[in-house]
Amino acid sequence: MTTDTGQDAVGLARRTGADLLHRVEDRLRSLLAVERDAWAAVHEQAVVPVDALSELIASGGKRIRPAFCITGYLAAGGDPAEPGIVAAGAALEMLHLSALVHDDVLDDSSSRRGVPTVHTQAMALHESSGWQGEPRRYGEGVAILVGDLALVYSEELMAEAPRRVLPEWNKLRSEVMIGQYMDVHAAAEFSVDPRSSRLIARIKSGRYTIHRPLVVGAKRGRGRGDLAPALEEYGEAVGEAFQLRDDLLDASATPAETGKPTGLDFTQHKMTLLLGWAMQRDEHIHTLVTEPGHTPDEVRRRLLDTGVPADVERHIAGLVERGCKAIADAPVDQVWRGELAAMAGRVAYRTA
Amino acid sequence: MTTDTGQDAVGLARRTGADLLHRVEDRLRSLLAVERDAWAAVHEQAVVPVDALSELIASGGKRIRPAFCITGYLAAGGDPAEPGIVAAGAALEMLHLSALVHDDVLDDSSSRRGVPTVHTQAMALHESSGWQGEPRRYGEGVAILVGDLALVYSEELMAEAPRRVLPEWNKLRSEVMIGQYMDVHAAAEFSVDPRSSRLIARIKSGRYTIHRPLVVGAKRGRGRGDLAPALEEYGEAVGEAFQLRDDLLDASATPAETGKPTGLDFTQHKMTLLLGWAMQRDEHIHTLVTEPGHTPDEVRRRLLDTGVPADVERHIAGLVERGCKAIADAPVDQVWRGELAAMAGRVAYRTA
Repeated sequence: MTTDTGQDAVGLARRTGADLLHRVEDRLRSLLAVERDAWAAVHEQAVVPVDALSELIASGGKRIRPAFCITGYLAAGGDPAEPGIVAAGAALEMLHLSALVHDDVLDDSSSRRGVPTVHTQAMALHESSGWQGEPRRYGEGVAILVGDLALVYSEELMAEAPRRVLPEWNKLRSEVMIGQYMDVHAAAEFSVDPRSSRLIARIKSGRYTIHRPLVVGAKRGRGRGDLAPALEEYGEAVGEAFQLRDDLLDASATPAETGKPTGLDFTQHKMTLLLGWAMQRDEHIHTLVTEPGHTPDEVRRRLLDTGVPADVERHIAGLVERGCKAIADAPVDQVWRGELAAMAGRVAYRTA
Repeated sequence: MTTDTGQDAVGLARRTGADLLHRVEDRLRSLLAVERDAWAAVHEQAVVPVDALSELIASGGKRIRPAFCITGYLAAGGDPAEPGIVAAGAALEMLHLSALVHDDVLDDSSSRRGVPTVHTQAMALHESSGWQGEPRRYGEGVAILVGDLALVYSEELMAEAPRRVLPEWNKLRSEVMIGQYMDVHAAAEFSVDPRSSRLIARIKSGRYTIHRPLVVGAKRGRGRGDLAPALEEYGEAVGEAFQLRDDLLDASATPAETGKPTGLDFTQHKMTLLLGWAMQRDEHIHTLVTEPGHTPDEVRRRLLDTGVPADVERHIAGLVERGCKAIADAPVDQVWRGELAAMAGRVAYRTA
């Protein structure tokens, strides 16, 4: 039974978390504003890569990684008044911007957060200006550099953190790069290997989005390394749910709903968790995927027309439950156990 | 007159510097060996991006940036036994690897240090394996991720440095990304603006290659920020000489000599320092560049057939002199003034 005091504590925890997330937002914007001013004094063209990042931040996004980092920090008893946690949250989001900009080149995706992607914009500018060279090379080149710049800024932000978070931060970043490589390679080779899809999803999504941001936050807090096992188990389960939802949204949502093209996993031959799952359950899907002459859209339609989505929904529910259980016995305050449970649900049942 | 003691001191200084450079090399290799082992335990494919970096390191390179960092450190009285300087030198080289891999995509360059570039290799593998999707997108995608991974490792290495070097390190990295963007943009727009070419060369080469590595080293040493103005002046002059030599090598050397394609600046429409210089001195080159219907090779041949190279050689000599003068009065030991002068000459008169 929740008492009035309990509700007060929950309200306070949420306000504290929301306030820190606001401050992360301010920190991202102020870093870019300072950089813009410095570069504007050098050359009018020098501000373009900085502006590309500002535009991406202004266009929205869910800020999932800063949110988990802040929650991990507060759950571990971190002081909300200390500025370092804001920088750590901002670093995670800036790293994510870098990954998005590069990922959109890798997937040749045309829109992100409802606006044209960086490489698409630069390519269109090159074409309409009638510049020298190939528009595609120019557009993708600009996106490579904009993503690199975001990666540099993310380091600049994380450099404010105490050294004890570095091992986790180092793992997080090399994992996302190598996980992405494995994903691109598996799609090219089109190897039907559900074990490998699960590994990629675990590295790229579970750890990157949930487990490591939580642990960075917890270690940033009071060096609560003792929370790591429970946060890892939670992150693995909720991360898998996050990735399955991502796959389901790609298969069934519209671009208007997600702000980016959908169905891309299929046209890019991604061996997603969802597809691996479907191939194991439906012989016909296995045939459509592995035998030549079938379009990506045939695979997608068959997948949606079978019982697979309902199956996956049940599995997602189980994962959320597993995540909640993982933290039920963790040595953190009841309030934060509740918050983590609520966040698991929001991540697993998001609509964009 | 050089005394025996003076020669001993010079010999000792050189041995110390060479020993630290060896240790930088070991550090680079050992970091990649440790990462390879860790990833090999996860998945056989996961080692591919790590191996791509090891191959690039094994294929050679001049290690100019670590050399300047170490020289700045020792000149500032840094203790050669301290491990941190080795990590800082390795960080600069790892950042440079990242820049090279991404730069080769930007320029669509086929070879580097005598071996095929990362994107070219990955593209060829995709083609010969008959994989799904477009070979170019795969090859360039892999190179984006390999370069990102090198950037992450460079941060991991620099994180061992004391905080006082971070402002310089932060500037160095954002400068190289934004300088690259300005270069790519100027080439696309093909704006004939020698002032802007000088700015780009200053940011991309002088600061990135010489000035900032020196200052990172000096600050890493004993916090000798007082050396910064002399090192900056030296770096600007020697950096311009470095860039002009780069441009001359691109215009006149053969791929066998440089280990990479030559003439690329011309086919990529790069408004280099050398070309800006030539256009100001030779009306005919100005016409060949600005009026349509002329091939990049016509520009290159005209440039080599005129007095421009000799002019540039004289200018380079003046820059080396200016660099030596900048440090002649700096508060560092005579031995290190001599070493910096010798390095200026080696950088300005290198043949690859």
